[in-house]
Amino acid sequence: MTTGKINVSVENIFPLIKKFLYSDHEIFLRELISNGTDATLKLKHLTNIGEAKVEYGNPILEVKIDKEGKKLHIIDQGIGMTADEVEKYINQLAFSGAEEFLEKYKDSAKDSGIIGHFGLGFYSAFMVASKVEIITKSYKDEPAAHWICDGSPEFSLEPADKTDRGTEIILHIAEDSLEFLEDSKITGLLNKYNKFMPIPIKFGTRTETLPKPEDAPEDYVNETVETDNIINNPNPAWTKQPADLNEEDYKTFYHELYPMQFEEPLFNIHLNVDYPFNLTGILYFPKLGSDMQIQKDKIQLYQNQVFVTDNVEGIVPEFLMMLRGVVDSPDIPLNVSRSGLQADGAVKKISNYITRKVADKLKSLFNENRADFESKWNDIKIVLEYGMLSEDKFYEKAGAFVLYPTVNDKYYTLEELKENLKDKQTDKDGKLVVLYAGNKEAQHAYIETAEAKGYEVLLLDSPIISHLIQKLENDNQNLTFVRVDSDHIDNLIKKDETTISKLSDEEKESLKTSLESFIPKTYTVQLESLDSQAAPFIITQPEFMRRMKEMSQTGGGGMFGMGNMPEMYNLVVNTNSPLASTILTTADKTAQESLVKQALDLAKLSQNLLKGEALTAFVKRSFELIK
Amino acid sequence: MTTGKINVSVENIFPLIKKFLYSDHEIFLRELISNGTDATLKLKHLTNIGEAKVEYGNPILEVKIDKEGKKLHIIDQGIGMTADEVEKYINQLAFSGAEEFLEKYKDSAKDSGIIGHFGLGFYSAFMVASKVEIITKSYKDEPAAHWICDGSPEFSLEPADKTDRGTEIILHIAEDSLEFLEDSKITGLLNKYNKFMPIPIKFGTRTETLPKPEDAPEDYVNETVETDNIINNPNPAWTKQPADLNEEDYKTFYHELYPMQFEEPLFNIHLNVDYPFNLTGILYFPKLGSDMQIQKDKIQLYQNQVFVTDNVEGIVPEFLMMLRGVVDSPDIPLNVSRSGLQADGAVKKISNYITRKVADKLKSLFNENRADFESKWNDIKIVLEYGMLSEDKFYEKAGAFVLYPTVNDKYYTLEELKENLKDKQTDKDGKLVVLYAGNKEAQHAYIETAEAKGYEVLLLDSPIISHLIQKLENDNQNLTFVRVDSDHIDNLIKKDETTISKLSDEEKESLKTSLESFIPKTYTVQLESLDSQAAPFIITQPEFMRRMKEMSQTGGGGMFGMGNMPEMYNLVVNTNSPLASTILTTADKTAQESLVKQALDLAKLSQNLLKGEALTAFVKRSFELIK
Repeated sequence: MTTGKINVSVENIFPLIKKFLYSDHEIFLRELISNGTDATLKLKHLTNIGEAKVEYGNPILEVKIDKEGKKLHIIDQGIGMTADEVEKYINQLAFSGAEEFLEKYKDSAKDSGIIGHFGLGFYSAFMVASKVEIITKSYKDEPAAHWICDGSPEFSLEPADKTDRGTEIILHIAEDSLEFLEDSKITGLLNKYNKFMPIPIKFGTRTETLPKPEDAPEDYVNETVETDNIINNPNPAWTKQPADLNEEDYKTFYHELYPMQFEEPLFNIHLNVDYPFNLTGILYFPKLGSDMQIQKDKIQLYQNQVFVTDNVEGIVPEFLMMLRGVVDSPDIPLNVSRSGLQADGAVKKISNYITRKVADKLKSLFNENRADFESKWNDIKIVLEYGMLSEDKFYEKAGAFVLYPTVNDKYYTLEELKENLKDKQTDKDGKLVVLYAGNKEAQHAYIETAEAKGYEVLLLDSPIISHLIQKLENDNQNLTFVRVDSDHIDNLIKKDETTISKLSDEEKESLKTSLESFIPKTYTVQLESLDSQAAPFIITQPEFMRRMKEMSQTGGGGMFGMGNMPEMYNLVVNTNSPLASTILTTADKTAQESLVKQALDLAKLSQNLLKGEALTAFVKRSFELIK
Repeated sequence: MTTGKINVSVENIFPLIKKFLYSDHEIFLRELISNGTDATLKLKHLTNIGEAKVEYGNPILEVKIDKEGKKLHIIDQGIGMTADEVEKYINQLAFSGAEEFLEKYKDSAKDSGIIGHFGLGFYSAFMVASKVEIITKSYKDEPAAHWICDGSPEFSLEPADKTDRGTEIILHIAEDSLEFLEDSKITGLLNKYNKFMPIPIKFGTRTETLPKPEDAPEDYVNETVETDNIINNPNPAWTKQPADLNEEDYKTFYHELYPMQFEEPLFNIHLNVDYPFNLTGILYFPKLGSDMQIQKDKIQLYQNQVFVTDNVEGIVPEFLMMLRGVVDSPDIPLNVSRSGLQADGAVKKISNYITRKVADKLKSLFNENRADFESKWNDIKIVLEYGMLSEDKFYEKAGAFVLYPTVNDKYYTLEELKENLKDKQTDKDGKLVVLYAGNKEAQHAYIETAEAKGYEVLLLDSPIISHLIQKLENDNQNLTFVRVDSDHIDNLIKKDETTISKLSDEEKESLKTSLESFIPKTYTVQLESLDSQAAPFIITQPEFMRRMKEMSQTGGGGMFGMGNMPEMYNLVVNTNSPLASTILTTADKTAQESLVKQALDLAKLSQNLLKGEALTAFVKRSFELIK
């Protein structure tokens, strides 16, 4: 038996790193700027604890394009490296200086914000550069060093005459990567990855006009100066304490995050926790309406102010993915598959924390200014209703702020709804019947009839509402929801009243026979003795079948295959209406038929069922009637 | 100046490989099975060219779970390794045996299907295993070897007593990866990645019932045997020649690819090219309807029969992403960003090739069986129309097969349309006017009027149709499209005919004044002397504004901000209709008003504009009229 150590040669591994370290080559810039930021934060830490006896000052990072020389420079004013340190940190692939630093200073450096993890980031430079130089001067009193490597992987190292502290990385951009010498490309990358990094980043200069002095003559021409163009905001709102921010600050930050977004957010939720995990962030509720097809991927994930991704699936609860904003946490494992993320305990805790914070914020918004909350309801309901259906924890808390609006813009909580409706809308069996409409316009005639009885009608128009009312009925005994057009109003809320029938049983039988001979089989004729002033013909659509069908169509509920069932309608005929008597007493079959058909057409109009050829014929006939 | 070589230590790089080689840990199984496949294909090649003097036989791969021992075995019957080869290929990280093999046999092994690239695949085993063993016996006459490594990265190597050719990999599954000991998990992975790999893969056994012998007694109990459960189809349809496949084979393969899909595909396109790039595959047109929200990510990308991804963005032209099927090409760079893919020359050629093949296939389907093609039109039009808008090359070829259906289910090509309509529908200025409807039901009255004049009306109901007709008008002089309800039919196709007006100019002026006092300002009153039998009131919606609005709403066209413009309607009043005379001669203002309002309501009904309260009032009034 022989034993040994697995061997790795740099000739084999180096080409892999060049090609495959990251699938997006553009990541190199984020990595090098993260390294420069770390170098600066390390210096800050060492001066803070008195280990470095130098002035920290106001260090910045700089990115410079040298188009002619085909070079890209990344320059920091941080801790720098001695020649020995270059040997140690650079020439040794995958040796992480950041890890070593954090290990050495583990007690004091915990919150220093240092990013680096695995010491591979620097080598990502070779994804876009044919040759890389490092010119670096340590904060220690040692000469500067100049390292050059053409990726062969041979390098040279010699002293340099750089005198100011810090590190300059020079990338000789490869022929297949010349795009990284374009101003617009670099601006785009800096904006994407580095917009909120903690050290100011300079990219070029801009011209600023100085204010006119008070005693300036009339023909005074304002002086201008060239100032550094700082592309980032090193202190973004989410890194501050909520107590230090006002509404305006939150809005300003929203527009910083989404410069192309002109609408104001409805409200925000500041996330801030450091135990048992570290997470900061701000979530915004945008105006959503009832469109489920809203764009996701708007929430940005950061780690220590470095942009990571806009795919927060698995981290943010699904129902909140329609929100916008920022989540920053060093505790989210990044190179784990999405399914792995969902199984990860820390991530699960983060997701639960976000759910709880959102529920708490909604509750306090509701309590602090109910009128304002009501005015925003239509823009947030889809998120809340979806949350009630998908997260039990959220459902439990939702009673305190979820609203049920009426067609007349009154807003009830579920408890208020029960309280307000119970006197009038409890039926003879003790069930509280909640009437609702899905569309104020389309169900107008039915709403009018219900309101004439003194009933309230809710307006519930989300695409997932049938799932929600099903759940509410399951969890609330003696509560039932019926759409206002699902039967005649007197059948929807049955009271112990009987209307006297004008017609005898024989007359009714005769009327039914006549009607059924003219009415298509798709309608089930249902005779009712109603108030004589009530509509003579109404078309209704029974609640249960319609709801199952809707649930089946919007997915995940109802009964299998119900989505493709045909619509089912009843034709309610008011036997006490004058029209019913007229039909009964019209002896001429042709006249009787045209009477029934015109009445059916009118009932169909109220239920939006008269269309196409039948509608054209109806209109023509009706023009004849009035000409 | 010092020079040197960048150094890499296995202690640093090994943990990285364990954690980050692939973001999806499950990939390890695909990698190990690819290695086993390569080992088998290498043996096949060497026996083919006579370099290995052994019997190739019918080698298979086997995957075995040892639940109790917490081990997963992957066993091949391929080329095997001697102890020296283990030293060379395994102990040297990132040294690719496959590359060396292909280099050595470059002339003969070009089409051997060998997969391996970078020699890192084997190490992916350490993503899920705490310890890995290799027991391997070369086809050469040398003793077997047994390699063990606990990932430390120390290994041991000793002779083994394995006598049958091939390699067995034993993974001691780590505590955090025990899911990979579940049958269902492994079955799922094999189905996802290895379903069409070229060597049979055995996973467990299944019981097969033997047929009853002809002379069996009545009480004969069928015998059963245990047979290998082969999970893959080593010869999937796309690897065969089109000439060797019939329609049934293509359908069978479709269901193999999508076992949960019960509908048949409409037709398929077999891709097969080996110069200037290598690509095979089969694309299927599923039934799509006019829903743009159809699921993408249905086309699967393979390399040498190994599943890679179902995201083919950048490789398949965007308008074809709604199709289904398989693309297999070793020439697609995989670890390149999506934007990199789009810039890649080879990928661009692949995308263009696919576009051309699809266009050619559509043309031949159209020519071979036009009736069949027409019957499928509604299910494929959205892809073709979107293709015409997004790919110029496709647009150029589309004239030969893109269809324009009428409301009566006649189907014209653009040339046929021009030819058939030119006699009747050329207006007095020489413009050919194509009438179309967006919805047969909703525009019924207008269609009827147009047909009464002997005109054809197209049914163009795709959501992107306004963009397409805009493009067609730009490219075809003297061709114009107007929706059938965009004006009165006599104005849509203007002829050199004048209808005599029954009313004098003064009477018209007086009628207009009366009408405008009752008609809301949202309608522009437009008096026309039409046939006295034509509808007295019609509401029209001018083409230009409506089309711009639609284009703006479906994105990428129209004019900025038009999507939010209010709808604009005209009220066309036929001054020659009896109703116009009646209105004019009704002296009582109240009676005149109710006449005008009822007529307006009827016109609104035909344009689907009578809703809510106004509709309820109309229905009530109309019930009164007939009771």
